[in-house]
Formats: sequence, structure tokens, C-alpha cells
Amino acid sequence: MYNNEYFMKLALEQAKFADIEDEIPVGAVIVKDNVVIASAYNQKDKEKLVTRHAELIAIEKASAKLKDWRLNDTIIYVTLEPCPMCASAIQQARISKIIYGCDSNITDNRKIIEQILQNNNYNHQVIIERGIMSDECSSIIKKFFNNKR
Amino acid sequence: MYNNEYFMKLALEQAKFADIEDEIPVGAVIVKDNVVIASAYNQKDKEKLVTRHAELIAIEKASAKLKDWRLNDTIIYVTLEPCPMCASAIQQARISKIIYGCDSNITDNRKIIEQILQNNNYNHQVIIERGIMSDECSSIIKKFFNNKR
Repeated sequence: MYNNEYFMKLALEQAKFADIEDEIPVGAVIVKDNVVIASAYNQKDKEKLVTRHAELIAIEKASAKLKDWRLNDTIIYVTLEPCPMCASAIQQARISKIIYGCDSNITDNRKIIEQILQNNNYNHQVIIERGIMSDECSSIIKKFFNNKR
Repeated sequence: MYNNEYFMKLALEQAKFADIEDEIPVGAVIVKDNVVIASAYNQKDKEKLVTRHAELIAIEKASAKLKDWRLNDTIIYVTLEPCPMCASAIQQARISKIIYGCDSNITDNRKIIEQILQNNNYNHQVIIERGIMSDECSSIIKKFFNNKR
């Protein structure tokens, strides 16, 4: 059995691909039964689409693989706290658990995504675990923005 | 100049396409300078993807047309109150205004999407107008679910 650090390192490898392509370095992998079924990195600028976040691409790849929009009994590892778009896609895809690395620096984002992921009014709730390899996940993003200045 | 009812009727025409394909009948159009630049309908079940909501498909078509993820100075017309995924995509795409038909029946959904669309902590805020052709927009959805029973 692989552990959380193992899969978060794979998500970080994805974030590095984004970095190389001059995209904000965020990566994600989706795991089912301890096996990676999808991996992706942020491609928003290259694809000129707000929907090309790592999580959404990973969800689309996993759904294509499982031939189902339902991704029950899967875990998504993301290097950064998700935005509400990705959090809601994760919730609607019925992913069991999100494990993310570093926190967003946007005030209120965490409060909003928790309302989306763990709201009893929606038909599925997602377990949240945060802070796995937080330093590594945030430092690649900080370096990216420092190089931009 | 066309008015809101004109564009909502076009969104409703899209919803009817979804209905014909046995999808929850929700439609959307995106308008810039009083011209429709994208239209789409829900294709979640056919495409087996949670990301195939009408709004996300419309955003992707509009971005492809404008060759930019930024959709400034556009209005999106949707027949149904959006889910948080679509609301956040609309906010991140910097769409100026959302005009939607009928309300969601999910408790809290409106509160959550208002926090996403009109939050000063995010870098763009979206004007919200609701209740345009609300009866027509909700009756097509009600009929769809009644036929399912």
C-alpha cells in the first residue's frame, strides 16, 4: 500500500509539468484501490480556458477511464486547495476524499469550498484532509510568482 | 436591441435539446454586444462527465470563439440557477452578468453561489439577475422529472 506522501509526490510531479509550460504549478492525481487512474496539471493559459484546472482535467480523464461520471470510492490528491469550481466538480463526481497540499491565499475560499464539499443539502459529501507536503506544494507556487516579478 | 426575454427564450430552446436527449433540461447562451456568441445544453449523462453542464460548455465555446479565457463584457443567460461549479467558472471567466430563470430546489445553493459570484476576495464580481421567464424554465424541468416517475 502506498501512502499519502507517495501520491502527493505524483501530484507534485504534475505541478512541475505546469511550471515548465509557464502555467501556475498545480497538479492532481485521482486514485482508486491504491492505483492512479488519472493525473493532470493546470493548463488554463495554454488552453485559454478557465475550466482547464488540474482537478477538472483529472476528473474528465478518470470519468473517461471508468466510463461513468460517478467516481465513487476514489481519492483526489491536489497540490493546492481547490477553487469552488473544482470543489463542486469533485463533490458532484462523488469522489470520496480530497487530500490537498497547501492552502489558498484567498480569504474565504476555504470556508466556501467546505460548504460545497461537506454540505448535507447536496447528495454527496467529501472527506477533506489538508496539509500533506504543504511546504513543497506552496514553495513551487511561490517560486513561480517570484520569477514572474 | 434584443431584451432579456429574447435571450432567455434561446436558452430555453437549448434546454429543449437536452430534453429530447433525455438530459435534465437546462440551457445557456452567452451574449456579447447583443449578439449570441455561444449556446449549449446539459450533456452530463450522454458524455458521462459532471463537467458537461450547459454553462461550462457555453463558456468553453465562447472562450474558443474569443480565443481568451477572459469573457469580459458578456452576459450569460441560464434557464436554472447554477451549481457552484458553474458559478465559479462564470466568476473566473469574468463574465459581467448572469441572468437565470428558475431557482434551484437545493437548500443553501443560492447562498453559496452568491458568495462565489459576489465575493470581494475574488478578483471579479458578477451581477446577478434572477426570475426571468421563471415559470417556463421550471416547468420544462418539472415535466422531465414527472415523466421519469
